[in-house]
Amino acid sequence: MRTLLFFGILVFGLHLNIWAQDHQHAAGHALTYPDIPGFITLKTDLHQHTVFSDGEVWPSIRVMEALRENLDAISLTEHLEYQPHKADIPHPDRNRSYQLAREEAKDHGLMIIPGSEITRNAPIGHSNALFTTDANLLLAEDPETPFAEAKKQNAFVFWNHPAWYRQSPSGNPVLSEFQSERIKNGELHGIEVINEHDYAEESFALALKHNLTIMGTSDIHGLIDWQYLEKGFHRPITLVFAKKRSLESMREALFAGNTAAVYNGLLVGKPQFINPLIKASVKINKATYIPNTDILEVELENISSSDLLFENEMNYNFYSSSPVFEIPANKTFTLKIKTLEKVSSVALKLKALGAYTAPKTHPVITWDVSVE
Amino acid sequence: MRTLLFFGILVFGLHLNIWAQDHQHAAGHALTYPDIPGFITLKTDLHQHTVFSDGEVWPSIRVMEALRENLDAISLTEHLEYQPHKADIPHPDRNRSYQLAREEAKDHGLMIIPGSEITRNAPIGHSNALFTTDANLLLAEDPETPFAEAKKQNAFVFWNHPAWYRQSPSGNPVLSEFQSERIKNGELHGIEVINEHDYAEESFALALKHNLTIMGTSDIHGLIDWQYLEKGFHRPITLVFAKKRSLESMREALFAGNTAAVYNGLLVGKPQFINPLIKASVKINKATYIPNTDILEVELENISSSDLLFENEMNYNFYSSSPVFEIPANKTFTLKIKTLEKVSSVALKLKALGAYTAPKTHPVITWDVSVE
Amino acid sequence: MRTLLFFGILVFGLHLNIWAQDHQHAAGHALTYPDIPGFITLKTDLHQHTVFSDGEVWPSIRVMEALRENLDAISLTEHLEYQPHKADIPHPDRNRSYQLAREEAKDHGLMIIPGSEITRNAPIGHSNALFTTDANLLLAEDPETPFAEAKKQNAFVFWNHPAWYRQSPSGNPVLSEFQSERIKNGELHGIEVINEHDYAEESFALALKHNLTIMGTSDIHGLIDWQYLEKGFHRPITLVFAKKRSLESMREALFAGNTAAVYNGLLVGKPQFINPLIKASVKINKATYIPNTDILEVELENISSSDLLFENEMNYNFYSSSPVFEIPANKTFTLKIKTLEKVSSVALKLKALGAYTAPKTHPVITWDVSVE
Amino acid sequence: MRTLLFFGILVFGLHLNIWAQDHQHAAGHALTYPDIPGFITLKTDLHQHTVFSDGEVWPSIRVMEALRENLDAISLTEHLEYQPHKADIPHPDRNRSYQLAREEAKDHGLMIIPGSEITRNAPIGHSNALFTTDANLLLAEDPETPFAEAKKQNAFVFWNHPAWYRQSPSGNPVLSEFQSERIKNGELHGIEVINEHDYAEESFALALKHNLTIMGTSDIHGLIDWQYLEKGFHRPITLVFAKKRSLESMREALFAGNTAAVYNGLLVGKPQFINPLIKASVKINKATYIPNTDILEVELENISSSDLLFENEMNYNFYSSSPVFEIPANKTFTLKIKTLEKVSSVALKLKALGAYTAPKTHPVITWDVSVE
Repeated sequence: MRTLLFFGILVFGLHLNIWAQDHQHAAGHALTYPDIPGFITLKTDLHQHTVFSDGEVWPSIRVMEALRENLDAISLTEHLEYQPHKADIPHPDRNRSYQLAREEAKDHGLMIIPGSEITRNAPIGHSNALFTTDANLLLAEDPETPFAEAKKQNAFVFWNHPAWYRQSPSGNPVLSEFQSERIKNGELHGIEVINEHDYAEESFALALKHNLTIMGTSDIHGLIDWQYLEKGFHRPITLVFAKKRSLESMREALFAGNTAAVYNGLLVGKPQFINPLIKASVKINKATYIPNTDILEVELENISSSDLLFENEMNYNFYSSSPVFEIPANKTFTLKIKTLEKVSSVALKLKALGAYTAPKTHPVITWDVSVE
Repeated sequence: MRTLLFFGILVFGLHLNIWAQDHQHAAGHALTYPDIPGFITLKTDLHQHTVFSDGEVWPSIRVMEALRENLDAISLTEHLEYQPHKADIPHPDRNRSYQLAREEAKDHGLMIIPGSEITRNAPIGHSNALFTTDANLLLAEDPETPFAEAKKQNAFVFWNHPAWYRQSPSGNPVLSEFQSERIKNGELHGIEVINEHDYAEESFALALKHNLTIMGTSDIHGLIDWQYLEKGFHRPITLVFAKKRSLESMREALFAGNTAAVYNGLLVGKPQFINPLIKASVKINKATYIPNTDILEVELENISSSDLLFENEMNYNFYSSSPVFEIPANKTFTLKIKTLEKVSSVALKLKALGAYTAPKTHPVITWDVSVE
Repeated sequence: MRTLLFFGILVFGLHLNIWAQDHQHAAGHALTYPDIPGFITLKTDLHQHTVFSDGEVWPSIRVMEALRENLDAISLTEHLEYQPHKADIPHPDRNRSYQLAREEAKDHGLMIIPGSEITRNAPIGHSNALFTTDANLLLAEDPETPFAEAKKQNAFVFWNHPAWYRQSPSGNPVLSEFQSERIKNGELHGIEVINEHDYAEESFALALKHNLTIMGTSDIHGLIDWQYLEKGFHRPITLVFAKKRSLESMREALFAGNTAAVYNGLLVGKPQFINPLIKASVKINKATYIPNTDILEVELENISSSDLLFENEMNYNFYSSSPVFEIPANKTFTLKIKTLEKVSSVALKLKALGAYTAPKTHPVITWDVSVE
Repeated sequence: MRTLLFFGILVFGLHLNIWAQDHQHAAGHALTYPDIPGFITLKTDLHQHTVFSDGEVWPSIRVMEALRENLDAISLTEHLEYQPHKADIPHPDRNRSYQLAREEAKDHGLMIIPGSEITRNAPIGHSNALFTTDANLLLAEDPETPFAEAKKQNAFVFWNHPAWYRQSPSGNPVLSEFQSERIKNGELHGIEVINEHDYAEESFALALKHNLTIMGTSDIHGLIDWQYLEKGFHRPITLVFAKKRSLESMREALFAGNTAAVYNGLLVGKPQFINPLIKASVKINKATYIPNTDILEVELENISSSDLLFENEMNYNFYSSSPVFEIPANKTFTLKIKTLEKVSSVALKLKALGAYTAPKTHPVITWDVSVE
């Protein structure tokens, strides 16, 4: 019973903004990740759909979903060419979804990035262009124009779901000649290594080989609640390590490749970002010896929203815990280290089994622990 | 990554139906209510909105939400006159939302009832017309035409949220002259006694006084999950007691006033429906004496999705339980009755504290219990 | 691996006290009830067993269980005459269980009341004597001596589980001549109206008729966790309304009949205690009108550990909630009252459906609500 | 109110057996592990205490706890020399705890193994002797006699908590000369690698070096619920791989070293047992290609009560899941393998990150998957 009007005259219609406030950090779903030295860590989902292409919700819902998960920025990347609802939403302005989301988000500190999905069959595939200034100009029959126009608009462009079996039946991504040329031309800058539920190691290898920015996205069409949250998951996100919390700074960071793709306990990225991210995610709260023993109790706190899985890489053994152990998201864990004699500091060295700095390569992180 | 096309040629787009199947009876949210003697009990939500008026989702989401809660029928009652999205969805056919929902639902056994909301300020208020044959014909400047046209189409019409404080600042519904005339003319047949979270006793009184069909609806604009399910509630529904599981039979039942409004543990309706509904909701699984005592153990099973709250109305006292007790939805409960001597049968007589057969009036239900 | 000793010499054995501290208010099971005007509200369980009669745990476990539920006082009322473990615990001092519990509890602020169960078949039945100075003196062949001796020790004595079907196959308690005489002699002062899972209305009637103190107890033999907590229940307790938090003050309160028996949402007692208890359990946090309406929003907070079930007894109706509604333990609930016009104060009048001030009699409680 | 008697004459006292039946497989805590080729897998906890040494419960509680977790065998290994309750339980027969447990367990299929803890300070330490015929004969002043007598009784003896910091302040177990001699004499046959919450890699190394049977035990003194279950854990257990489900067969298996120590997701043992255990724990339910792709979907079912953590060791990559993934206890998981071309069978090769076949050594397990 949300509306009140006198035949066409709206009297009460401010419900969306009001309602959205209820959703800020709803129901314990808020994501948190720490900043890393030199950078602010921004939580983003830069590949999403609404009724303005083949999604099933109005842009307002995407804003509320993002507020509930405490994201910093989203992009509604409607398919430019694929418009299954065009019988009802005819010839829309391709910037329209962005405009509606920005209006909805303006009082909530959520940044909206204009963006679109350039949608072609293999071997060209799907690509997202972000920070476009006019998405309509990317519409064209030939495949080259959208990329050229995106470049003209200084857009950041990334390759979507390279391993998607509908476009690559082996699930193995193949960089086409067309795409190689786009990279060479400075028209393709990033690649999804996580899309929906799929982490593709081969896509990660391509990212490293061609120096493409590493992306993780939900590619949501329906509801975030149904696809992720009610199963106990969060959506995949891209952490963007930016100098400031601004659109411009985020764009620079994306072009510079300052990202990590994160999907629950899975963290994928270059070591210069993954390593400080994990290091910052685990705080050393205290370190004291158990009285009359050489066993050092170290209280670790995981301040991130990823469950972190570790394996001991020290020469010292643990008391109590297995060498493989998990610190759940936002929980503390007390590690007991048998230092054999009393020491004043110890280098806590752990392999992060849920993180990858290259395909099949886990980073080893070291924390300097000072004994109290 | 749901679509695949060669520039405009759809190759893969059947995702909605496939996806919806996953949602059938999802996540333990399926509603169940027993049939009653002479009638099939149909679970319906006949007041809902989508992007085709001021809602925030495509009709497909409404179908999936209904399948998840195991409803038998829904209606997408878009505001005829209030079209806040008309800049993007211009001049739509007022039957369009219905058509899309019917297409989405066709393989799932969910019935879609065509319907529209006639939207006027007080004293005319909002009314839903169901079973319209062409909603477009209800559009008119004057308030009388929509009702006259609805009657011509044999539509079932009910008054929405009579107690809504935006239209009645006291929260007290007042039947206007306009509405009285509609009733007299056979143009208004029902009334919401539960709308969203609000049960209005005064609306129930009006229903009984003017012999209007009792309705309960969600009036959903956003997401059923956010407004109801994640808080541990179900949406309000109208139980329709029909001869058959068909649209025609449902229409007859609505005109005949064969309904109950249900919102979780709250059940509102005329005694001829509420009483058999509660009686059928509680099955007597067994009744035996505790050896060497005069204490009769009776296993009761609540086969409905409403938590049922009862107070003892027998002359016998209970062993163990308080005279006020609850049988949670879909659970069993063993009542121990002190019959003072061994009897071969007993009339179990309970007042249903969560049910109303008139304002402030709880029904007393009797079950004949045969001792084994 | 808790002990360390050099053949009989204990080196490390302080584990019980240390361990018990972990249990204080464990796992969200802590019970809280507000004080009432003139009295401190003490949470007690005054009927329990250990291995020193027919229970299955050492007294230390009873202390830890009580700390976990945040009780103020307990009594370990071992059967004086029934000692099934006497082959292993021969001729024990009947005060021994008390001594061990007091030792265990001494650093935790939990009061231990010395007590014993006088155990006879019907028609004499079972009775607990609390505040005995030497339980051994209550051992005797004849049934009169234990009561006479208890009186001599100024003990408070109450009748256990009068409705227990093993002693009264109808589940109907019958006051025997022996017991009547005990009452007349000032040797029997209280009666259990709740024992284990059983609330007996007839016992409550006897309490009121003979002016006996109303008691509720767990009568635990096994584990509180298995019998109550893991099923989502708390144990039955006796709330004692005392002048001070002391053993002496508690004894006075018990003799004066200042108690209520509480088992989760069920509250049983005389109106002079039940009414202020419920009144104090529900705090009015704020009361303001919804702008532009005559609907008063009143935020109620249930600060007790009982779910409180209410029915509207005002002339005003509610907006949104059913006339029957529950405020769960330690939760807030916003009631919306249709006051028809703006008022500066309102008498909130509710019937407490989970409370009894006499058999089948619910109290009606009034709160004075000042509109802000 | 569990007892009924006429002054000393027991009328109703069978409650323990009756009650225990309620506890069989209680509350979803039942442990299950599959048999392995050639052996029946028995779930045992062979190090526990009751009031007959320094524990806090009667033996009956230990039986019920074991039934709730679905164990096959337990031993109540009371300290022979450390008897803190001897003031109340004087000079008990050291076989008494066993006798009471056996009586309690006899109708439930739970096997009770007679056993005792030989309790000395370091360097002798604590050891458990199982399958003793008369525990009393193990009482002696000198340390050699208990071991010699145990051998005479054909008892199986294992070293308890070698890494316990109260006996070894570095947490580093040191095999003493005394113990070396016991091994040489055939008087010490096993070693705890998991005691309470502590897995000690050094103890595991000692087990492998000296060919000692690998044990995992709870060493419970208080309540299994408080120490393990309410924290979401199971107790540590020893899986015994026996020819038959009998005491004699279990003894043979223990002497033969046919065991694994298991604590939730941690599995420790020799590869000849750990490898088939993990292999049997994961069933291949089906394997089919996703239509029109080279992606093989393999449904895996973990039929054990341990969450199993794996890392991909194949040359093939996964679609969707990370190379590190978990199959929770008693759940299914669908792995999608990119086989690059269609194959008729594939060797699924996974490293078990939660399992150890030597310190810091994870086993790699292979399943032969036939494509349907």
